[in-house]
Amino acid sequence: MNRSNRPLILVTNDDGYFAPGLKVLIDMIKPYGDIIVVAPEQGVSGMSHAITIKVPLRVVKINEEENLIIYKINGTPVDCVKIGLNQLCPRKPDMVLSGINHGSNSSISIIYSGTMGGALEGCLNGIPSIGFSLCSHSMNADFNLVKKYGLTIFLDILKNGIPDKTCLNINFPITKEKDFKGVKVCRQAKGVWKEEYEKRTDPHGGTYYWLTGSFNNQENGSTDTDEWALANNYASIVPVKTDFTDFDSIALLSNLNYEL
Amino acid sequence: MNRSNRPLILVTNDDGYFAPGLKVLIDMIKPYGDIIVVAPEQGVSGMSHAITIKVPLRVVKINEEENLIIYKINGTPVDCVKIGLNQLCPRKPDMVLSGINHGSNSSISIIYSGTMGGALEGCLNGIPSIGFSLCSHSMNADFNLVKKYGLTIFLDILKNGIPDKTCLNINFPITKEKDFKGVKVCRQAKGVWKEEYEKRTDPHGGTYYWLTGSFNNQENGSTDTDEWALANNYASIVPVKTDFTDFDSIALLSNLNYEL
Repeated sequence: MNRSNRPLILVTNDDGYFAPGLKVLIDMIKPYGDIIVVAPEQGVSGMSHAITIKVPLRVVKINEEENLIIYKINGTPVDCVKIGLNQLCPRKPDMVLSGINHGSNSSISIIYSGTMGGALEGCLNGIPSIGFSLCSHSMNADFNLVKKYGLTIFLDILKNGIPDKTCLNINFPITKEKDFKGVKVCRQAKGVWKEEYEKRTDPHGGTYYWLTGSFNNQENGSTDTDEWALANNYASIVPVKTDFTDFDSIALLSNLNYEL
Repeated sequence: MNRSNRPLILVTNDDGYFAPGLKVLIDMIKPYGDIIVVAPEQGVSGMSHAITIKVPLRVVKINEEENLIIYKINGTPVDCVKIGLNQLCPRKPDMVLSGINHGSNSSISIIYSGTMGGALEGCLNGIPSIGFSLCSHSMNADFNLVKKYGLTIFLDILKNGIPDKTCLNINFPITKEKDFKGVKVCRQAKGVWKEEYEKRTDPHGGTYYWLTGSFNNQENGSTDTDEWALANNYASIVPVKTDFTDFDSIALLSNLNYEL
């Protein structure tokens, strides 16, 4: 890739380099910049902000065109962004994008999300970063809404930026375009995944457990959350920060302060 | 384990069930409750809030005494807490503890930390939860400070609780007891890990990369951060929340709101 004056955009995902959602994202932004994709060699959903420490990373270039290079690695989305920034990009990218994830990353799902791990790693490095997700796990999901309105959001951010130390978690609902209501900047809804492990017996008599679960929305109808927006046919944008301090609790915990 | 009126405490870590830091934690709290340990079968540092989706979990009981059961599983710290709560605990625990980690989890290291992943998962389930870390990776590190002052903190929390939806990230410095200054409730210091991948060639001519890095403290001498506390021989307690919304940015991003 020759050095150009076009924006340099680093792209990752957590569904793997072959995922349809990644291809949609690349096609969407390709007219507007030079694109370097570093994506996992296999689907690695649920990897959160995990990094690979004990195993060395292998980088394989799988495609190169005029303004697009695609690499796959044996790592997580955060590994992809780290090695992308440190080894594969000719300069600091103008933006880091992650997705388009096959499945929602709204509410507390953000904490488990490899897609958002990748985006947050970009943000930590001072780069405007966005995670895109579509609320469907289907590999044949209809990405037309994201293509159209995701592009509008992308172009706005490319022009106007994002507040410093902030990253965007953008989710699109599954709905027909005629029913789509627009885009809402929201807060993260309160919620939790309630697990139910399925206990099974293998052919040799051993016991094993499969993780299953369902999302439990803990909100009471507030209209300012991502869950509300998505349930009402809006795309949700939650600004996310990487300072996890609960400032409200610092004073409440003052009994734990002591000097010797 | 018979049902008792003693507090039930679920314990995990990310260094594996055999780690000295875990043993110190168990010994520290054993006089005060019934303990169920669910720990990874191997060290899984850097796993953040990752969950195991594609591989079934195997649970192996490796020790049972009157008020202590120890299980190992082929999963992450978050898996340990999930399967502990859903399958292995006879009732909802009164507390979830994670650690004692061999190595610091201060500042932005929290985002990569499996130790804190385990603690945050307890918090998400409405249980007072604490991650303990010691700022040394040595397997022979001196845990005496944590044994003494960690116990004080543990007993305080057992009695007084933690604000709802808040989890504690507690780090102990490496210092002699005579130089130890006390305990400070802090905010998370601004910082970032700057990566340097080492590029090497394997015996067959293939290229691989090892992750290395160094922590870059982005603070300017503020005395209210965990990094300051640890550098000045205090133990740091950072209250952490699971709502990652950057509320300050919601208004700043209002240009992205639109209705169709």
